[in-house]
Amino acid sequence: MASIKPSVPKGTRDFSPTEMVRRNFIFDTIKGVFRKYGYQQIETPTMENLSTLTGKYGDEGDKLIFKVLNSGDFWNEAEKEKQKTESFEYNSKSLTPLISEKALRYDLTVPFARYVVMHQNEITFPFKRFQVQPVWRADRPQKGRYREFYQCDADVVGSDSLLNEAEFVLIYDEALSKLGLKDFTIKINNRKILSGIAEIIDKADKIIDLTVAIDKLDKIGLGGVTNELLEKGFTETDIEKIKPVILLEGTNTVKLQKLRIALAVSEIGLKGCEEIETVLNYLSVSPVQTAKVELDITLARGLNYYTGAIFEVKTNEVAMGSIGGGGRYDDLTGMFAPIATGEKGLTGVGISFGADRIYDVMEDLNLFPATAGQSTQLLICCFDKAAEEFALPLVQQLRRREINVELYPSGAKIKKQLDYANSKSIPYVIIIGSEEMETGLLTLKNMETGVQDKRTVEQIVGQVFS
Amino acid sequence: MASIKPSVPKGTRDFSPTEMVRRNFIFDTIKGVFRKYGYQQIETPTMENLSTLTGKYGDEGDKLIFKVLNSGDFWNEAEKEKQKTESFEYNSKSLTPLISEKALRYDLTVPFARYVVMHQNEITFPFKRFQVQPVWRADRPQKGRYREFYQCDADVVGSDSLLNEAEFVLIYDEALSKLGLKDFTIKINNRKILSGIAEIIDKADKIIDLTVAIDKLDKIGLGGVTNELLEKGFTETDIEKIKPVILLEGTNTVKLQKLRIALAVSEIGLKGCEEIETVLNYLSVSPVQTAKVELDITLARGLNYYTGAIFEVKTNEVAMGSIGGGGRYDDLTGMFAPIATGEKGLTGVGISFGADRIYDVMEDLNLFPATAGQSTQLLICCFDKAAEEFALPLVQQLRRREINVELYPSGAKIKKQLDYANSKSIPYVIIIGSEEMETGLLTLKNMETGVQDKRTVEQIVGQVFS
Repeated sequence: MASIKPSVPKGTRDFSPTEMVRRNFIFDTIKGVFRKYGYQQIETPTMENLSTLTGKYGDEGDKLIFKVLNSGDFWNEAEKEKQKTESFEYNSKSLTPLISEKALRYDLTVPFARYVVMHQNEITFPFKRFQVQPVWRADRPQKGRYREFYQCDADVVGSDSLLNEAEFVLIYDEALSKLGLKDFTIKINNRKILSGIAEIIDKADKIIDLTVAIDKLDKIGLGGVTNELLEKGFTETDIEKIKPVILLEGTNTVKLQKLRIALAVSEIGLKGCEEIETVLNYLSVSPVQTAKVELDITLARGLNYYTGAIFEVKTNEVAMGSIGGGGRYDDLTGMFAPIATGEKGLTGVGISFGADRIYDVMEDLNLFPATAGQSTQLLICCFDKAAEEFALPLVQQLRRREINVELYPSGAKIKKQLDYANSKSIPYVIIIGSEEMETGLLTLKNMETGVQDKRTVEQIVGQVFS
Repeated sequence: MASIKPSVPKGTRDFSPTEMVRRNFIFDTIKGVFRKYGYQQIETPTMENLSTLTGKYGDEGDKLIFKVLNSGDFWNEAEKEKQKTESFEYNSKSLTPLISEKALRYDLTVPFARYVVMHQNEITFPFKRFQVQPVWRADRPQKGRYREFYQCDADVVGSDSLLNEAEFVLIYDEALSKLGLKDFTIKINNRKILSGIAEIIDKADKIIDLTVAIDKLDKIGLGGVTNELLEKGFTETDIEKIKPVILLEGTNTVKLQKLRIALAVSEIGLKGCEEIETVLNYLSVSPVQTAKVELDITLARGLNYYTGAIFEVKTNEVAMGSIGGGGRYDDLTGMFAPIATGEKGLTGVGISFGADRIYDVMEDLNLFPATAGQSTQLLICCFDKAAEEFALPLVQQLRRREINVELYPSGAKIKKQLDYANSKSIPYVIIIGSEEMETGLLTLKNMETGVQDKRTVEQIVGQVFS
């Protein structure tokens, strides 16, 4: 038992009681809205088979997966395997599969796809699921980027209705409104529009270069975008053709009109416009409360992944990256196996809330309820053992009424007991001494105002905690 | 993208929507009771430094800790370290510290101790914390034993008042009563009584052999216990002396009287009796609702760890191991460093709920509320696109009233939509077609009774979901 200074691994965090109350407030709010829209919670194991995760996140992603060392005599087992390979080369890459067959969840999407494939016979589609669990990435830790963080996802698979897209906009709007955000924008785009833009200049093969450049418009301006496109092999004529699209302005309706003209020759582009319009139509019948909903054709996140709608949410109240994002994808389950029911994998659409960033935004804007730190509603302080025993039936009576009450164990000075109440933000304190026991009138102190008076047990129960 | 059959690592589980609702019901109930008694939630990271965990669980425990492979080029880093050791021996034991510096949480107690030491300056003592998080053990998986499972702990540190012990009995009683258990026993014992028993026969050094033998009384009977004690070097005289203790019967009060006589010469034994009596006195002023509280001197769980009270909870309704346990320990934080405020570590007392076993008990006894699978309260089924648009404002109106509503995307046959409602245990369905839109009278179907009738939107909102 050496005397060491304990610490947590870099990029990981403890959460204190106050932080937990606030985090729970965020998660409970989001979960409540997911449920309201018919989403059901699942959980998947922290560890997945390494084979389930490998190859799903690209080479860079694979490197960031935390691998779990095989338990037992892993080296002995590895020796047996190594002997099968002539002149085995000892390096991290060759050894990893021999000494590790499990890894920590890297995101919630791949485990969800695995879940759907494994449980396809129990699931009724469309399957609307949400999942709120931590994920782990061996990223270089930095401000706001952690190696362990929660993801907060909702997806529906097995339905291609655009009603789902519209409802996700409503979910973002309702959850963030409930958290107290007053000015935020839900940006929507559609992969098919991006495809259409590439198509009208006959550069479908260069869609990634194109969207990467367009994406920088607000940072580097039209001049910067033009230069980048020229460097990447686009012609002046190409740029002239797509300029009206890049510089798209006006209301969503106006933007859509202009887009339809610009993309008139592209079937897929027009299909994208139609999908966006359908979503906006749903939202005109069932409008958002707070959000600005903005068609933004520069939005391209996860381009290789999304096949239809693309979402991103930003707050306009503080400088902060996106606090949510998502989109529609085809063939979620294809990464594992063609699902029995269809020739292809299941189509789906999903969104994610950036809980850590939402926490920071709420802290910046002072949006956590003042009562968020309060859990115990009443502390009973006793002068002595006799008072403690006197207090016990009262404590029980209050707890039967579902009031959160603490009885401070006797033996400490009243000053210390009141400090305890303050440190836990307990709003009321009852002080019991010999006088209180004799008269039956207990001293009730409001810890916020400092006002104290004498009341009977019945008055306290009836007036303060009714 | 090979077509592989995905699976989860052995000993781990997916939780389906129904299981999640039930698990949340258990966890939320227990958390609510913890909060009612003034306990505050914390969370610690999934990964701890390997040095934080190693040596805390014994040699066997150390082997069961899941180690995480260092990220990056772990083998290259290990090479550098190995070169420092002349004639490095390649084996699992020598390699582990070179290629792994982090490990998965094995229980909640050691991380809690680490938390208290690290955050001692922010904490106001007594510190009442609860923690509900998964832990991982590389145990051989078998029925009811998993490699990933949740622990559900509450502890108070920095208070030696026996009021805490009494309140833990009340917490067990209230939480299990709320979960619907009707017949369960909270067994209590005290390590000091066990020490006293060893002391009266001058065998304090053999306390473990003694308690291990006594613990088997209900399995092997007095004869068996006697034989085991003789084998372990206890004398006939010893056994005669402790027989009255082993065969202790009667009410708790009677047991305490007999114990006091038997342990009359042992100071520590009498101290144990006094502590038990104090706890029972608290419980006579503030009685339990459902539980039987039973002094059981054969109870010894985690003997090396506990220094005062010992708890264990068993259901009497189904055959099942203990569904909870805990006790008082000295010097929680001593495993890391003497805490700044005191010469020794902090004393504490804590309990744990066995959530997986409680789940199995509740399933056996059919205690999950029938509505536990219900989340969506109403499904709206539409014959066509027009009906879908007609339904949208109604959906929004109901959601504004915090009713969980789903609108099935149009395009599917009504039969399929009703099957969907059944599979999600949705209790009500509204069906909208052209007639309903014309008359404004919607078809409301009670999915349980099968009864359906026509009502206006106002009637549905006011009568069904008020």
